[in-house]
Amino acid sequence: MLDAQAQLEILRRGVDQIVPEAEFLKRLERSIRENRPLRVKYGIDPTGIDVHLGHTVPLRKLRQFQDLGHKAVVIIGNYTAMVGDPSGRDETRSALTAEQVAANARDYLKQVGRIIDLEKAEVHHNGDWFGKWGFLDVLDLMRRMTLGQISAREDFAKRIKDEKPVYLHECLYPLMQGWDSVEIDADVELGGTEQLFSLLVARQLQPLRGQEPQIAMTMPILVGTDGTRRMGKSLGNYIGVAESPEEQFGKVMSVPDEPMAQYFTLLTDLPQPEVRELLAEGTNPRDAKEVLGKSIVAQYHGREAADRAAAAFRRRSAGEDPLEIPVVHLSADKLDAEGRIAAPALLKEIGFEASTSSARRVIEGGGFNVGPRREVVTDPKALVYVKDGLIVRSGKRKIAEIRLV
Amino acid sequence: MLDAQAQLEILRRGVDQIVPEAEFLKRLERSIRENRPLRVKYGIDPTGIDVHLGHTVPLRKLRQFQDLGHKAVVIIGNYTAMVGDPSGRDETRSALTAEQVAANARDYLKQVGRIIDLEKAEVHHNGDWFGKWGFLDVLDLMRRMTLGQISAREDFAKRIKDEKPVYLHECLYPLMQGWDSVEIDADVELGGTEQLFSLLVARQLQPLRGQEPQIAMTMPILVGTDGTRRMGKSLGNYIGVAESPEEQFGKVMSVPDEPMAQYFTLLTDLPQPEVRELLAEGTNPRDAKEVLGKSIVAQYHGREAADRAAAAFRRRSAGEDPLEIPVVHLSADKLDAEGRIAAPALLKEIGFEASTSSARRVIEGGGFNVGPRREVVTDPKALVYVKDGLIVRSGKRKIAEIRLV
Repeated sequence: MLDAQAQLEILRRGVDQIVPEAEFLKRLERSIRENRPLRVKYGIDPTGIDVHLGHTVPLRKLRQFQDLGHKAVVIIGNYTAMVGDPSGRDETRSALTAEQVAANARDYLKQVGRIIDLEKAEVHHNGDWFGKWGFLDVLDLMRRMTLGQISAREDFAKRIKDEKPVYLHECLYPLMQGWDSVEIDADVELGGTEQLFSLLVARQLQPLRGQEPQIAMTMPILVGTDGTRRMGKSLGNYIGVAESPEEQFGKVMSVPDEPMAQYFTLLTDLPQPEVRELLAEGTNPRDAKEVLGKSIVAQYHGREAADRAAAAFRRRSAGEDPLEIPVVHLSADKLDAEGRIAAPALLKEIGFEASTSSARRVIEGGGFNVGPRREVVTDPKALVYVKDGLIVRSGKRKIAEIRLV
Repeated sequence: MLDAQAQLEILRRGVDQIVPEAEFLKRLERSIRENRPLRVKYGIDPTGIDVHLGHTVPLRKLRQFQDLGHKAVVIIGNYTAMVGDPSGRDETRSALTAEQVAANARDYLKQVGRIIDLEKAEVHHNGDWFGKWGFLDVLDLMRRMTLGQISAREDFAKRIKDEKPVYLHECLYPLMQGWDSVEIDADVELGGTEQLFSLLVARQLQPLRGQEPQIAMTMPILVGTDGTRRMGKSLGNYIGVAESPEEQFGKVMSVPDEPMAQYFTLLTDLPQPEVRELLAEGTNPRDAKEVLGKSIVAQYHGREAADRAAAAFRRRSAGEDPLEIPVVHLSADKLDAEGRIAAPALLKEIGFEASTSSARRVIEGGGFNVGPRREVVTDPKALVYVKDGLIVRSGKRKIAEIRLV
């Protein structure tokens, strides 16, 4: 094990707050002295998540703890999901059914396994304890917090000010999250910046069971590919960990220059001096983005796929067709006697478009071209001569070589 | 059954608010038309109550409903007691254990039986339903209210303003009370003025189960014998329903003139014109108080006891000994050869004082006298000649005739 100071330096990377930090260092020291790994909690509500890079920020920190020899404890909040985490939200979440939650939980764990080592982690579902609770247990938990504490939460205060409702059950959320820490005897809990309130609730609850209060470690919110708002599926500004190397790489290249430093810090292990060098004045941001894109793709698809995605992107940027062009088959009897087919029908037959009407729109928009000279066909009534080996392109990324059968 | 308008007139007596009143009249009309008695709910938390006249205000209203042919439904809040009703309180109630609550509930029902006809009433304990609830049931209930609604309660708003804590579990109270109405399908709920918020919560919950929302009927808070603050045990300004006729009557006579009208309205069935006559200018408030005192004592001890208590009070006021003087026995060998006994020892022997030291204080205070001429003994060292039949008096009310044995 590394000494405490060295661990702290590694773990501090990209972190927003460690509360209280002095206690954290002592906990690390004792963990080494007593050869007792820290129990590091990360909770997630299975609300049907396509894990994207924003989610990987705390998960990568959890992995860092694992790599330093500590114990990752993942809480699947199947009960908290039925409440809905109000943190940082400006409205009430819709509630999920138990069935949705169970299906989401299985799916979520599969995705999380791409980032942390699930073999070495403990995984708990908080329904395992809350499911056994009765009315009086809930009451006892509710006794631990006042309306004043709750209303002071930034997100709730804002909703109250804006006259948007905060429902009573939402107030239970931070207490449930806090109780999870008691159940698993957490030393550290990870979460996003806006979770600080919830992470600190456990510190009030753990002493009731003779436990030391956990340390809260918050991570910044990753900005999306638009460079302004937080990364999120609904905003369409996300990079999913399950996306293809090409999609991931292309999206990274589309990110504005500003959030580059944050991306490097939170999404890669590249040493900070190297990052600074890459982002120094006078350098081409394109080069930095390529390094970043390759690093991210490599994490989810391997080094080789990352290199291929980078090369393909470079060719496309230069206006070249990709090295490997997918082949599509077209039945010769779709052609007329002259060997022609209507342009919209062609796009539909080779699977570029779902219907001839959407194909017509693409054509009229100038997005369709054919052959080595990229002849653009804009008339939806045009007939296209198709020979074996013809290359057709649609939109920015669709390309295929036609094989007549 | 009386017609709806006549019932309304009787039931309106002393009431603070009926919300909504138009709906109440319609409900009465339908009850008559369909020959279906109204289900009138009154909930009480068994928190160890010595029932006093303040409590009888809603209970007497409940009895009125019974007398008009409606169904009294008493909820023993054994579960709500474990939360503690925050209504009108400026601080959090201390929680009770299940055992305390069960013992209190038995004791409470005995007392309530003096006012309502328990044989004809339905009695439920809300632990019967809440005791079966799990975490998710509590959550579902909590979804029905917002922080905004809760914080707007007068009592909570005041505590928040004064920076006194309102605990989260207290917010559950009105929802539980509301749910009780759903469980028993209440048409009307009775409560004190400060309960209006809680009484109206049920109106939001009942439609979820296809029930018509109940009507809230609030009763004013009875002022105590000091004429200023609400009647309460801890304030020492109460008249208990279990107290003796003499105590009850004497306490009524000690009430200031001002709250007389309220007492007549809320604690007797005396027709209002008669009340107005009794309290008209120029009359002696003493006479009104005597009518009131007799009426109250008669309710709990019968007409005869009421007359006796009034007569005894009159004699005492006139400085006369009561008609019936209790006899105490004193062993002759407690006397010295001259037939004397030390004054403090005498007070202790006949049970007027628990110790000779407290007896000494009474004597020094001038509160002890003996014989037909009421000779005051103020020297605690004095020896009292005791003959068979000697009458001794101590303080305002203690009197006994000594029989030597």
